[in-house]
Amino acid sequence: MITSTTGPQPADFTDVRATNLAVVLRFVRENAPCSRADIAASTGLNKATVSSLVADLIDRRLVRETGLTENRVGRPATMLVLDGSPYAAAGIEVNVDYLTAVAVDLSGRRLLSWRRSFQGPAATPAQAVAEVARLARRAVARMVKEERQVLGLAVAVPGLVGVDGRVRLAPNLGWRDVDLAGDLAKALRDPGFPVQVDNDANLGALAEHRFGPFGGIGNLVYLTGEVGVGAGVILDGRLRRGGQGYSGEFGHIQIDPGGPECRCGRVGCLEAVAGIGAVVGRDAQGAPVSPAEVEPELDEVVRRARAGDRATLGMLAGVGGNLGRGVAVIANLLNPEVVVLGGYYVPLAPWLLPAAEAEIRRRTIAPEAGGCRLVASTLGYGAAALGGAARVLDSVDSGRLPHRG
Amino acid sequence: MITSTTGPQPADFTDVRATNLAVVLRFVRENAPCSRADIAASTGLNKATVSSLVADLIDRRLVRETGLTENRVGRPATMLVLDGSPYAAAGIEVNVDYLTAVAVDLSGRRLLSWRRSFQGPAATPAQAVAEVARLARRAVARMVKEERQVLGLAVAVPGLVGVDGRVRLAPNLGWRDVDLAGDLAKALRDPGFPVQVDNDANLGALAEHRFGPFGGIGNLVYLTGEVGVGAGVILDGRLRRGGQGYSGEFGHIQIDPGGPECRCGRVGCLEAVAGIGAVVGRDAQGAPVSPAEVEPELDEVVRRARAGDRATLGMLAGVGGNLGRGVAVIANLLNPEVVVLGGYYVPLAPWLLPAAEAEIRRRTIAPEAGGCRLVASTLGYGAAALGGAARVLDSVDSGRLPHRG
Repeated sequence: MITSTTGPQPADFTDVRATNLAVVLRFVRENAPCSRADIAASTGLNKATVSSLVADLIDRRLVRETGLTENRVGRPATMLVLDGSPYAAAGIEVNVDYLTAVAVDLSGRRLLSWRRSFQGPAATPAQAVAEVARLARRAVARMVKEERQVLGLAVAVPGLVGVDGRVRLAPNLGWRDVDLAGDLAKALRDPGFPVQVDNDANLGALAEHRFGPFGGIGNLVYLTGEVGVGAGVILDGRLRRGGQGYSGEFGHIQIDPGGPECRCGRVGCLEAVAGIGAVVGRDAQGAPVSPAEVEPELDEVVRRARAGDRATLGMLAGVGGNLGRGVAVIANLLNPEVVVLGGYYVPLAPWLLPAAEAEIRRRTIAPEAGGCRLVASTLGYGAAALGGAARVLDSVDSGRLPHRG
Repeated sequence: MITSTTGPQPADFTDVRATNLAVVLRFVRENAPCSRADIAASTGLNKATVSSLVADLIDRRLVRETGLTENRVGRPATMLVLDGSPYAAAGIEVNVDYLTAVAVDLSGRRLLSWRRSFQGPAATPAQAVAEVARLARRAVARMVKEERQVLGLAVAVPGLVGVDGRVRLAPNLGWRDVDLAGDLAKALRDPGFPVQVDNDANLGALAEHRFGPFGGIGNLVYLTGEVGVGAGVILDGRLRRGGQGYSGEFGHIQIDPGGPECRCGRVGCLEAVAGIGAVVGRDAQGAPVSPAEVEPELDEVVRRARAGDRATLGMLAGVGGNLGRGVAVIANLLNPEVVVLGGYYVPLAPWLLPAAEAEIRRRTIAPEAGGCRLVASTLGYGAAALGGAARVLDSVDSGRLPHRG
């Protein structure tokens, strides 16, 4: 999963063909409809090579010809578009109070998008595996019914996921050392496609990078705004997981040494001063609001903010400022082009962003925050599940092309 | 400089040969003495290809045969070692109070290592360029005298260096928008090799990654301990510069909102609470110690710490703790295998490390700090200059092989 190479890898001619198939497929995905001549002109591959590669991709039903021709001087060209109709990529998001399942085709078109309530903290890991497997089986059955081959499934978990895919620690689910990928593959009885597990923020970042309005951007950080706050770090176009896979633990960097205690036992963590718990506050007994009550409470906060309630606006400006202090750390250390706010941050963004942006500009040493923009996600709920599907598609893009089974 | 590609790039057969030449060269560098059969076995390239590639490398005087043979069953094999005797890679470090020049051969053996005093803040950028050019010319003249071809020069600057190589801001030198690479190339009158400029922490990280004891490590962060504190961030084996090249501004993340004012005007920056200024303190008038007095003051601190002076030990534990709070942010966000302390931190490491390590363990959410170790550099002063030479060698490793001129 992690490549820690410091230089070029050996290549041979078989690699070259697989690589070039992936290059052409990616070009068609990004530029369709396009002609073989367009592909040759943009990739630098010669026309005969392109024709041979396209024939192979058509054979695998990854690309198809359309009746369209380009309106230009000379012989009209047959235009190519992505096909991929026999394939699906699947993602599932495990959250504290719900499961989300998504499947997309090669072009990213949603084939299904389901949400189920789920009693995360109440379930044992074994019960959770059974429930995730049930959802996965139904999603796969639907795809099979549509005569699609599932290329892979990636599952998002809010916690530390090792580079081996084991869930080392998911505090909000009460999990410790759970081999979710292995258990799930067993529960699905060797499903014939790879099952992977990843951190939810990592997969959210992949979703934004592939399906959000940030296609060409090399450096993007995605922040989950769920019960916890995690970061998915994309630098130079790739997810950066760190040595053991535990990068992105943004929620527990200290923002305010004089701040409130965090659920993790530390003081003044970003999650404690800028997480959803700082917005919806505590119940009448002073206990944190339970996950199931977050959404109705959030709706109420948005309603009050819209109505111009001064206390609410002041609270959101404070939370936004704390969030900005955290994002400034990212801007100083990593200098990304964009930081994307996901989850519960999205409906709050109109009130969080101004205070956050002011703090980022003030605290970043590079002029104009080094070009770092803070934006709200436009992908809607389930970004991490969508990111699971994106991870499956990434493996196609990097050359693991499906064979028609 | 930045590649923000999200997928594979097209390859052709010329690329394949250049790539494979670099692969073989790198293998010999890391495994010499080795035989052609060793290369074939480890790289997966076939023996005929390896023989042809090795012949090419011998022709370029990058590799040479030794009289040695491996002691094994069957026909004895001719062993190969790195040659590179006709080549040199050069680096210069511009600091507030000194210039350092280094040149190395392909194997990293030091060919020269010079240090000159320099009045950074007193010099105009034009004067600084003239002085750096003078040092560069002398280094090049020495290499030419030794019949070596200089492959490139990279200059380290303590400040924000854009991806275009322009120095956007170097506060401790008083520079703003200086085209050092361009001006230097002009002053050297088109020297026939590329002149590059980079941030000093970035180059320090490259030096540690290539010449330090961390060869196989994918994720390494280097912290300069000069008058300023910067970070060079290597993830998955490559330097990560961010969107505009301004990553690694570690010195100005806020550690203590109640802390002292930083030279940058902000409050409680890491540089203010854990930089060298927090160690050597202020003079009798309350002004920060001038750069020229840092070294004698530092010697005095080390002497007192060795003698067991309690106030000194307490001060160093405090600074170490603050440094650890900063490194914990890196451990949480990036999960590197190692963070390397450079510059003035090195002589202080015996007293800084215990307090810093305790804070890192306490503040990192992953168990055992996610495997992140904090160590002192073993490269000695001038790591950034050495990193300049490393950057030149990196371009050879990635396939830009020299032609014998």
